[in-house]
Amino acid sequence: MKDVFLKKNERIDDLQLKGLKIIQNTKGFCFGIDAVLLANFCEIKLDSTVVDLGTGTGIIPLIIYGKNEINKIYGIEIQQEVADMAERSVELNGLEENIKILNMDLRNIEEVIKVNSIDVVVSNPPYMDKGTGIINPNDKKAISRHEIRGGLEDIIEKAKRLLKHNGRFYMIHRPNRLVDILYYLRKHKLEPKTLRFIHSKMSEAPNLVLIKSIKAAKPELKIEAPLYVYNEDGEYTNEIHEIYGLDD
Amino acid sequence: MKDVFLKKNERIDDLQLKGLKIIQNTKGFCFGIDAVLLANFCEIKLDSTVVDLGTGTGIIPLIIYGKNEINKIYGIEIQQEVADMAERSVELNGLEENIKILNMDLRNIEEVIKVNSIDVVVSNPPYMDKGTGIINPNDKKAISRHEIRGGLEDIIEKAKRLLKHNGRFYMIHRPNRLVDILYYLRKHKLEPKTLRFIHSKMSEAPNLVLIKSIKAAKPELKIEAPLYVYNEDGEYTNEIHEIYGLDD
Repeated sequence: MKDVFLKKNERIDDLQLKGLKIIQNTKGFCFGIDAVLLANFCEIKLDSTVVDLGTGTGIIPLIIYGKNEINKIYGIEIQQEVADMAERSVELNGLEENIKILNMDLRNIEEVIKVNSIDVVVSNPPYMDKGTGIINPNDKKAISRHEIRGGLEDIIEKAKRLLKHNGRFYMIHRPNRLVDILYYLRKHKLEPKTLRFIHSKMSEAPNLVLIKSIKAAKPELKIEAPLYVYNEDGEYTNEIHEIYGLDD
Repeated sequence: MKDVFLKKNERIDDLQLKGLKIIQNTKGFCFGIDAVLLANFCEIKLDSTVVDLGTGTGIIPLIIYGKNEINKIYGIEIQQEVADMAERSVELNGLEENIKILNMDLRNIEEVIKVNSIDVVVSNPPYMDKGTGIINPNDKKAISRHEIRGGLEDIIEKAKRLLKHNGRFYMIHRPNRLVDILYYLRKHKLEPKTLRFIHSKMSEAPNLVLIKSIKAAKPELKIEAPLYVYNEDGEYTNEIHEIYGLDD
């Protein structure tokens, strides 16, 4: 573990995963269950090269690194301050060889990463559409939550461009955007193959959806059994315990 | 109740709904829970005009008639023998003024029903894609189950043509076709607004999905809480009891 510089309002959190740690800004956007579920949803083959579009604090590359034998993960983040924090998390863990944070607009990604070269692309994009909600464009939280720079279709189109034939794209989003997501995925030849809905409780509507797509695959969707976060007694379900490693 | 002619292998079943009865062929395709759930999912305003694309035995028009104050329902059915049976069910119930069975290919529907004239279109289409499974084109069950005549996109395109501005289209299908369905709906300007997944049990993947679309509506999908058919003890849930009127 190296020494790294912590800025105002930043703290180091332990990921409870092979000693990995992450820097987060307590006044900024801290990672949530969605990033954890998405990183666990990804199937990563040995020595894969992975790209995370909109990596934020770098949480997804860190969890994927902690759970798989990867070749390299690129984390793309447009916000300079957030990318800098992710970069310092990578240094803190001594993972400069494995995780590369790129502070850039994902719409320019082809200038840096070759098309048709990536095994897995992953994205936990902003949930708010450009036209919705009140946005302060100088607000870091707003940029993380809204499609101000790089909307849903940009992300999907770039994922398609980066992936190899039959490469896989994993995303998590809100169910209210599902039509947009599935429509753009098919339009860009990233065929949606698996959906999994996440419900806070069994009796409630889903509040998140995990989506796996495969580049140039044949149409045939599988919807998996739901993932329930809490049981009837308001406690985490066994599956959430397993994902978080709470039983270790 | 009128006397009607019953053919070989036909029987009369009581729908347990305002005395309505239906003729079904015990060797043919009998209605299932999907038709009942779909008919219950439809919101029908007073004096609506409704079209059921691929009506089969006429089960959906009969249930919708039994539960709502409608103006008229058209049931479109391409198979001559099945349409004849549906027509005799209409006569059996004395509903010739309310339900009109049209024995025709839905692709020609605009020759009979004016475009932009219908309040609600409903369809419980064949679940099998044209290219899948072994099909005997002379087999009535096969025609009811496969998209031999009038595929998914034909149904969606015709629903769009028939509906008034802001008219509603209700469909039930298998989750494995969800991408096709949502893609074609948006393509044809029938914006998907509500999804409801139906699970046999809470711990299992959904086996059916109800879809409500509105012609020319703005994008914004709502996914409702799941509908579970059986509880943990293998008995019908309260919601299924209510839909089937089992508590009356």
